[in-house]
Amino acid sequence: MDDRFKKQMKFLLACDQEKEIVRQTYLADGSRRENDAEHAWHLALMASVLAEYANEPVDCLKVMTMVLIHDVVEIEAGDTYAYDYTNQASAEARERKAAEHLFGMLPDDQREYFRALWEDFEAYESAEARFAHVLDNFQPLVLTDAADGKSWKEHGAADANLYRRNARTAEGSEKLWAYMETLIRKNVRNGNLRHEETPREKK
Amino acid sequence: MDDRFKKQMKFLLACDQEKEIVRQTYLADGSRRENDAEHAWHLALMASVLAEYANEPVDCLKVMTMVLIHDVVEIEAGDTYAYDYTNQASAEARERKAAEHLFGMLPDDQREYFRALWEDFEAYESAEARFAHVLDNFQPLVLTDAADGKSWKEHGAADANLYRRNARTAEGSEKLWAYMETLIRKNVRNGNLRHEETPREKK
Repeated sequence: MDDRFKKQMKFLLACDQEKEIVRQTYLADGSRRENDAEHAWHLALMASVLAEYANEPVDCLKVMTMVLIHDVVEIEAGDTYAYDYTNQASAEARERKAAEHLFGMLPDDQREYFRALWEDFEAYESAEARFAHVLDNFQPLVLTDAADGKSWKEHGAADANLYRRNARTAEGSEKLWAYMETLIRKNVRNGNLRHEETPREKK
Repeated sequence: MDDRFKKQMKFLLACDQEKEIVRQTYLADGSRRENDAEHAWHLALMASVLAEYANEPVDCLKVMTMVLIHDVVEIEAGDTYAYDYTNQASAEARERKAAEHLFGMLPDDQREYFRALWEDFEAYESAEARFAHVLDNFQPLVLTDAADGKSWKEHGAADANLYRRNARTAEGSEKLWAYMETLIRKNVRNGNLRHEETPREKK
């Protein structure tokens, strides 16, 4: 077993732990919470089916690879709930350290490739990163709507949390954001989400 | 919500059920069995990291999309254990019917695209299909080795079962098959796999 292959296998086996990072989002049927690996698989599939709705043309292989690995850092940094503002700041430092360690298991060329893809996602500046972020927010919203708002009700989530989290979603896909807005409004109407004034309304 | 988008969302939500198809393979730490969505995610990641070991150059986007969807038919056809020879034959007919129904949820162009990719995988004739099959056999073998042969021991599996299942694996990647062979031999030595004469040895 040569050194290059050994490094690749070490990384691929370490990634197996992503299947044990449980998210807040429930499966569409509400039976249990999903994990990061299932979430990433669903995003990659969505990238393939919904790429036509990206505002700008995107390199589908890049979007797919990006979403496949965007959460691997949580193996070491843990999952931080989207609306847990206290831990959001420290999460960033923990995730950066985890990225160095995990992608650092790979041979140099692949370490650079995956690390750059992950940085690209985090930086939110390329067309692919913008679309990957759309999917990362779209998928849990669609699942939670299908599961009759289960995780929102458990957390007493408000529409304002979702609008804040999705402040930039329309930059990646106006079409998908428009649909997400209809789902948010529907879930306020049916009581799954609290209505909370957003800063814009307060003005 | 226009008709095209409605169809795409119907398919993507139906696919959520793939997360509930439990396989025989355990996670690397042996804690629980993995499901089809986790398996597909791991294959897609492996496609990205290990593509250099395909015998022929492969289109990575095609391999990735192929492995992401290769098992969705099991949502309706069920999972058939690799060494359950009794149900292998009827599984094929059930999976074909499921492919028609599931991919049939999509708009025409995407139905054709995914259906063709799935047929390509099943036909085992393109370079991408050959490599996708390598990954589909490589990943559970690597996980089962890491989990100290747990599912093999439960099923009393023999090395001959693995050699039979992998009769064509070297066509897709000699490098990965060579590694798989070392794992099979190691697991015979340590008692995780029974040794059974293969037809070739009997001659």
